[in-house]
Order: sequence, then structure tokens, then C-alpha cells
Amino acid sequence: MQGRERPMRGLTYEGRIGLREDLSTPSRPPGEARVRVRLAGICDTDLQIARGYMSFRGVLGHEFVGDVVECDDPRWLGKRVVGDINAGCGQCEDCTLRSGHHCPRRTVLGIVGRDGAMAEELVLPERRLVEVPERVDDECAVFAEPLAAALATWGAMNEGRRWRIDEDRVAVLGDGKLGLLIVLGLAAGWVRPTLVGHHADKMKLVEKACERTVLEGSLDQEPLDPFDAVIEATGTADGLRRALAMVAPRGKVILKTTVAGMTSVDLSPVVIHELQVLGSRCGSMKDAMGTLVIGGVDPRPLVAHRYGLKDGVRAFEHAGRRGTLKVLLDPRADP
Amino acid sequence: MQGRERPMRGLTYEGRIGLREDLSTPSRPPGEARVRVRLAGICDTDLQIARGYMSFRGVLGHEFVGDVVECDDPRWLGKRVVGDINAGCGQCEDCTLRSGHHCPRRTVLGIVGRDGAMAEELVLPERRLVEVPERVDDECAVFAEPLAAALATWGAMNEGRRWRIDEDRVAVLGDGKLGLLIVLGLAAGWVRPTLVGHHADKMKLVEKACERTVLEGSLDQEPLDPFDAVIEATGTADGLRRALAMVAPRGKVILKTTVAGMTSVDLSPVVIHELQVLGSRCGSMKDAMGTLVIGGVDPRPLVAHRYGLKDGVRAFEHAGRRGTLKVLLDPRADP
Repeated sequence: MQGRERPMRGLTYEGRIGLREDLSTPSRPPGEARVRVRLAGICDTDLQIARGYMSFRGVLGHEFVGDVVECDDPRWLGKRVVGDINAGCGQCEDCTLRSGHHCPRRTVLGIVGRDGAMAEELVLPERRLVEVPERVDDECAVFAEPLAAALATWGAMNEGRRWRIDEDRVAVLGDGKLGLLIVLGLAAGWVRPTLVGHHADKMKLVEKACERTVLEGSLDQEPLDPFDAVIEATGTADGLRRALAMVAPRGKVILKTTVAGMTSVDLSPVVIHELQVLGSRCGSMKDAMGTLVIGGVDPRPLVAHRYGLKDGVRAFEHAGRRGTLKVLLDPRADP
Repeated sequence: MQGRERPMRGLTYEGRIGLREDLSTPSRPPGEARVRVRLAGICDTDLQIARGYMSFRGVLGHEFVGDVVECDDPRWLGKRVVGDINAGCGQCEDCTLRSGHHCPRRTVLGIVGRDGAMAEELVLPERRLVEVPERVDDECAVFAEPLAAALATWGAMNEGRRWRIDEDRVAVLGDGKLGLLIVLGLAAGWVRPTLVGHHADKMKLVEKACERTVLEGSLDQEPLDPFDAVIEATGTADGLRRALAMVAPRGKVILKTTVAGMTSVDLSPVVIHELQVLGSRCGSMKDAMGTLVIGGVDPRPLVAHRYGLKDGVRAFEHAGRRGTLKVLLDPRADP
């Protein structure tokens, strides 16, 4: 099942973002699958990488759904799949006993040392693939990776508890793509958070999943009662400051988004109120797919626009505009 | 058992630190005990308060051992005691179900809204007292409060675990008073940490309790393998940066000391490595006294000097000098 190399198109970052028409299709190491991409999503990490963050060079993108066109294990051939973006060594303790998300030798699709999903094809270890059942359409499936990250907040919130987060007061800060997915993920588990954001129109999209939506500007006049857990999904130093101020003593602040570079913040509340600040990055693709299959989350209202690959640079410009939700790239749209 | 008011001496902060000879003995509300102070200890929080931190005004100090001279419950009368410094309302959920350390209406001895221990007498709720058994001498007992804080790191490290921290790799950053007590507390539980500090002479005091002692300056040339838990007890932004760099993925960073004001730090490792940053403040006085009674920790080598109250300002100057260990005040030394 070896494919021959032929040129393909892809959106790359090599000091600047650009469309390449002359990329080789990715070479496939043993145990990996070649996947023809149906859809790829643009996430804030991609926007940061396109500004030079992570010093990444190569094909961008890590959110995808596609079809396996070449692989070692014949059971994967022709399957529609999504994939865990962390390609670990497969042999270390983290890879064998845990998720492999922290394998020190890992590459990460479109983020660390591995070409990404914004191209006609990508490769990823077969063990990282998750099949997409027929009833989950492409526009849902392409959200599996960020939804997995959103659902990972459950793990952080429930860590060390004998009963799951339930009657607890939970707040989500940030009405961006990830913030809204987190809200939908929580609601799928019957936890209705308070959402704090900047855009009434975006918050309206997930209003039914919320206990309450609050415009951030109103908080200084009208502070809310303290929360047991606050999920920070704004990716700003202000968001972190706000989270530390909103959480109850001994409460949890879940950091979902990285503030690139130095953050200036007064951390004394962490000690004085004995807070738990928990970082959370990737989640389980199987959890995400399970949630999509049962219809627990329908992310399609979060799609802002769909572009062909050849309009990829324009798609990035669009995705980078303040307040834009999910922009998708379709490598098959303009053959 | 009402006492009459008479003037007493005390070390106060009222915009500046000074000895007052004309203080009234503290009035005793119902349920509280009047305690004649035998010894008081100077802690870094006191040094910060003496620089205006916490906007505190009144008698300084929260580490003490003393004798109950007046109380409601006759069983306390004449007892030698230490005390939990958090005087909660006694009625809220935190006071009735938990430690009361986060009661929103609490006063805190010598820190928030309550005169402290660097005077001839103090008052504290009877329910906050812990009796000092005869075999624990005053110089040990006066360490009960900081030892309780040191031992509280156990709770933070073990939170959410089914087995206690044991074979795990633990590092303590900071060879100040609290750092050394944390090392001694860990060793009492058979966990030998790696201690990272600046002063070979101070680290030598607890060398036997350590897996290893390391001069901080050598770390940049010779980094250590990652730790499962890193306890930050330097109270500096540098310490926090160092802790975030030394901890393994999904590991714990325990913040024991507050960096007053804004800290500039890159928090992206918290998300990328899914770290847990856990604030830890006060601990259980009973745990501390239990550890002292069995001789699990002998803090006396940490005493740098003992002053009478009249030399209190000088004692603060001494305690504030870089590298100074515990300075004690004895209100009975110069009657």
C-alpha cells in the first residue's frame, strides 16, 4: 500500500504564511496512516503560530477530518477519521501508561515537528486515529479536536473529587471558539455555567446551555458571587486576573489557553485563598467523538465561514478578525 | 475571670514599626482567652507587614506560645498554649464544616483586624487554642504555626491521590525559615526532598533531611531531572519561574509564599505541561504539635537570636537581614 509521491497544495508557515502548490505528499513511516483531508479548522493556536509562536515551520493546522488512503493495518483503509494530534514515541512511560500527550519525544500535528492538516494530505500514527461514525457529518467531526480540549476541563474540575462537579457553581471566561465549546461540553454533562464574554451575539449562540450570560464590562459594577471553578478561556492576562478574583477560596481555576509570553499578574490570591490553578491542554478524542455521536454537542452553529485551500491566507485573515468563530478550510473545494 | 485593664508593652505597626509602652491589655470577648505571651517569632509576613503590606495597623506577630491567664472555659486556665491564628466567625460553612481558614469574616492574629502576639498579652478564641504538652519546650512550641504551614504542603501534594507522596521526586525551593521547616516536615514523613537554596551554611542545617542540597546558581549549568512536585518557598518571581521549569508534565507546583504585588511570569508551561499550581497557606496546629511531641521535627537549630520586646525594632532589623533564620521575641526578658 505504498503511494507514489506527487505534488500537493498546502498552507505553510515559513517565516510567513503562504499557499504552496509544490509540496511533496508526506512520507509515511511504518505504523502511520496517510489521510486525505476533508476539512481542517483554524484555531487560535494556528493564528499564534502564523505570528511565529512555537517557532514552527511547515504545513499548518491540527483540526481535521479525513479519509485514510494508505496505511499498514488494512482495517483503517478507507475509513473516515479524526486523530489525536500528539504523536508520541509509543514506548516511553507516558505513551504506554498514559495519554502520550506529554511524551518528551512527541511531535504534534502542525505544531511541533510534524506537518499539519491544512493540505491535501497528512500522516499520523494509526494508533492516534479515531473512526467517525456515519451519523457524524464532516462539519461536526472537524470539531473533535477542540471539543476534546473543551471536555478535558471535566477532568481538571473533578480531579481529587469523589463526586463529579454537579451542583457546583462554574464560570467560563471567554466567548471565543473554545469558550463556547466548553460551555456546550459542560451543558452536555448537565452543568450549566455562567458565561462571561464580550459579544452578546456570540453568547446568544449558547445561551440555552448557560445558567447566565454576562457581559464582562458589567462585572466591575455588579460582581458575581464566587464560583467553585472558573475556566479561563480568554487567553489574556486580564482573563487570568479576573478568574483569580471570581473564584471562591480553595476553588479551581482551569487555564485552557496560553497567554503567549510574559504575563504580569498578582498571584498572592493563589496562596491566600489556597486556590488550585490547573493547566489543561488536549483531551480525549474518543470522549469528543462519543459526545458528537449522541448529539450531546452540535458545534455547527459555531462555523463562521468555509474557504477553499487556495483562499487559505484570506481564511487566516478572516479567522484573525476579532470576534470571528470557526473558519474551516476545504482542500477539495477548488481542485 | 474578668481582668482589669492595665498598660502593657507591644511592638506595633502604625505606618512605622515601634515599641509602645502604653497599650491597653486587649479586651476579651466572650469565648476568647487572654494569653500571656512567652515567646513570639518573626516571620517574613511580619517583615512585609512592617513595610505596609496588608494595610495592617496594630500589634504585630502571629507566631507565639503563651499561658492562658483568663478565659470562659475553666479547663483552659493556666494552660500553656499555641493557637490557630485564623479567628473565624464560628458560624459560617467554612467555620463549621472546614478549618475556618477562609471564613470571609475572619480576623487573623497580627495580620488582619486583630492585635498580634508581639506584646505581653493577646486574645484568641478558645476553640483556636492547642495545648502544649510538657515535653515540648517554648522554643519548639513557638514554631508550631510555621510548622503547621510547612506540613500543609503534604495536603497539597497528596490531594487527589490514592496513595501518599512516597517514592516521588520532590524539590523545595528556598532555604529561608519556611523552606527549611518544609524540608524537616517532609523528612519527618520519610520523604527526602532536593533542597535548592542560596546559602550552603543554612542548607547544611537540614542536610540530613535532604536527598540532596543544590546551590541555585549551579542549576543553569547542571539542570536536574524533572520533579513530581516542587514546593516554592522563596517568595520571588524567580522562584516561581524556576519551579515551573523544574516540574515534570502533570506535576504539582505548591506555592507557599506570596510574592507581594505583580509578578511577571510566563505561565504557558502551566497549560502546555498541564501543571497543577496549588496555593497553600496555613496548616493544622494539631498536626504541628503532634509532630513536635514525637520529636519528628526539632526546629531549634533554626533559631538565630532571641531579643526582649524592648529591642523589638532591632530584632526586626536583624530578621530582615538577608539569610537570617528565626528571630524570637521574649516579652518577659526585660520586665
